[in-house]
Amino acid sequence: MMQEAAIPLGIRLKLLAETPSDAAAQVIPDTVVGDYRDLDSLLSFARGCDVVTFDHEHVPTDHIRKLAAGGVAVHPGADALVYAQDKLRMRERLSAAGLPCPRWRAVADAAEMVAFGRDVGWPVVLKTPRGGYDGRGVWVVGEPAQATAVMEARADTERPLLAEEFVDFSREVAVLVARSPHGQAAAYPVVETVQADGICREVVAPAPGLAAAAAASAQEVALKIAAELDVTGVLAVEMFDAAGGLVVNELAMRPHNSGHWTIDGALTGQFEQHLRAVLNLPLGAPTARAPYTVLVNVLGHLDERGRPIDPYPRYVHCQARDPDLRIHMYGKEIRAGRKIGHVTVSGSDLPELRERAHHAAAYLAGEIDD
Amino acid sequence: MMQEAAIPLGIRLKLLAETPSDAAAQVIPDTVVGDYRDLDSLLSFARGCDVVTFDHEHVPTDHIRKLAAGGVAVHPGADALVYAQDKLRMRERLSAAGLPCPRWRAVADAAEMVAFGRDVGWPVVLKTPRGGYDGRGVWVVGEPAQATAVMEARADTERPLLAEEFVDFSREVAVLVARSPHGQAAAYPVVETVQADGICREVVAPAPGLAAAAAASAQEVALKIAAELDVTGVLAVEMFDAAGGLVVNELAMRPHNSGHWTIDGALTGQFEQHLRAVLNLPLGAPTARAPYTVLVNVLGHLDERGRPIDPYPRYVHCQARDPDLRIHMYGKEIRAGRKIGHVTVSGSDLPELRERAHHAAAYLAGEIDD
Repeated sequence: MMQEAAIPLGIRLKLLAETPSDAAAQVIPDTVVGDYRDLDSLLSFARGCDVVTFDHEHVPTDHIRKLAAGGVAVHPGADALVYAQDKLRMRERLSAAGLPCPRWRAVADAAEMVAFGRDVGWPVVLKTPRGGYDGRGVWVVGEPAQATAVMEARADTERPLLAEEFVDFSREVAVLVARSPHGQAAAYPVVETVQADGICREVVAPAPGLAAAAAASAQEVALKIAAELDVTGVLAVEMFDAAGGLVVNELAMRPHNSGHWTIDGALTGQFEQHLRAVLNLPLGAPTARAPYTVLVNVLGHLDERGRPIDPYPRYVHCQARDPDLRIHMYGKEIRAGRKIGHVTVSGSDLPELRERAHHAAAYLAGEIDD
Repeated sequence: MMQEAAIPLGIRLKLLAETPSDAAAQVIPDTVVGDYRDLDSLLSFARGCDVVTFDHEHVPTDHIRKLAAGGVAVHPGADALVYAQDKLRMRERLSAAGLPCPRWRAVADAAEMVAFGRDVGWPVVLKTPRGGYDGRGVWVVGEPAQATAVMEARADTERPLLAEEFVDFSREVAVLVARSPHGQAAAYPVVETVQADGICREVVAPAPGLAAAAAASAQEVALKIAAELDVTGVLAVEMFDAAGGLVVNELAMRPHNSGHWTIDGALTGQFEQHLRAVLNLPLGAPTARAPYTVLVNVLGHLDERGRPIDPYPRYVHCQARDPDLRIHMYGKEIRAGRKIGHVTVSGSDLPELRERAHHAAAYLAGEIDD
């Protein structure tokens, strides 16, 4: 998706891919296969790049510091990225800046977790500070007796863990902002995200029924985080909409699933915005193109014999049924539950848009057959 | 631009490029360098392609017939493409189908041209049937005395030439349609195009002040041409808006400059629509996204010492001045008067949109400095 945005800007991408069959390697001519965990690969790859950026947050910050020390412009920088990689440091930093977080504590053992639960009430949410993704690395601990079991079952994980109060939210929302090295920033409309089994299924832009003041305050929080952490590029701030107001859940410092709706639904898509931001170009308008845009992810699905269902023969029928539908396929190998594409549809009748997008995504995936 | 559209569809392009530095070769990994005039190159290139299509109309129809005879799906096919390559055959065919053309005649010498001018009135427009482009291969002959001079000066060109009455048009419009092998067709809104020195400078979608009935009739003419000639893929029909009604000027059977506004201004861009059409996929909605979209081409410009002006340092200022602006750079070498990019802007205030688009295009090109 970065390549789609780079071409009209006249920007030529160079890709460091893990394997030659990576989705991005299929569409970017200047591809080098290498390991982002290997410093020499990174240094040799970065030669000749004006700016280095990422589509995930797993590049070791030590490597990024060494790249930067070697004169390579890296965006976002290591000092910012660490807060997207380490949830404990993120909580420390956001709390220190007075930004709205759930109550939290670093807990090294079951006794500390029980003490935290006594203070904030049960259940308690336990997270590994690093490496969690799509619901992995997160456990809900219902009562004190479970604390020891959970800690022992995760004996191999790093310590301390992050314990957070269980926020009784009515829904999840996300704010996408972009910020450039010279400090220009732009905020997209606040969206509602719907998760199932820890995976984002649906995004509605803008978040229905969110009061203008609450939306503005959510954008302000996200812009403040971007400035406070010196984020460059796109930042997605996931929040809980709770009785006491919005609280920050997680951060992502890259074009993010909650922002894919912008490709068709906003004047400047998030991948273009990310490129403009990391290259220190003026940012584009984040304005929505329609009253509502609904995005539904297409998740890989297996048939009753456990074989992956190919979405391509199916998309002909989706195109025929709904010519307004925007289908995006990622060229990824199909695995059960993996995000392999998304569909977007824009208009003004929200229930109808949601029905159309969900039907198309389910049909594409092979979850339904008509 | 085809690659931008192919990626989200999950379609992988294979490119036959004239040189490795071609704009498209910079962004398509699977590129073969070869000569489209060489049948063996074409045959070997086409191996492994599901469908072969073009971004220009210069591939010899004999070669296309041989590809098709060898089992390669080629869209548009030779029988259609010949009418975009040969203006005389186009006039014969459209006239036979009762479609609105200026009065015309095949003229082999000055005497025949003078006779034609006597019948339809002077001036007369003279065209080489094949190979004209951006105003080349077209001459306006003012009076009988010029006929001999023009014929003698073009002694090396093919005979007969195409003579057409000079249509006293108020403006030029264009209709873009797409048609798939199984006959599904879609028509975009009629646009107004503004040319200078034979080169398209501006496109306004929809054509301002065009009555709904006239617009519908123009779309009907274009759809009829597509069906009559069995066009597959995108067809652009350029027309004159004259006192007597719309008359067909030229045809292009490929994504066309008059349709670049659709990339940002319509739900389905013309490159995506072309791919859907030639692959026999259901077509996307050609609906406009905004009341008006204005496109202005960026033409290569030289400085006072004859050196090409680089648009890239300039686009930072365009982006800063107008965050709504959609800039498309083609990655082409800069030559005076060459189309090297375009800018698009959408909204409802047409005079303002035109001012913004023209200013940005002129600044990018280096025609103005503030």
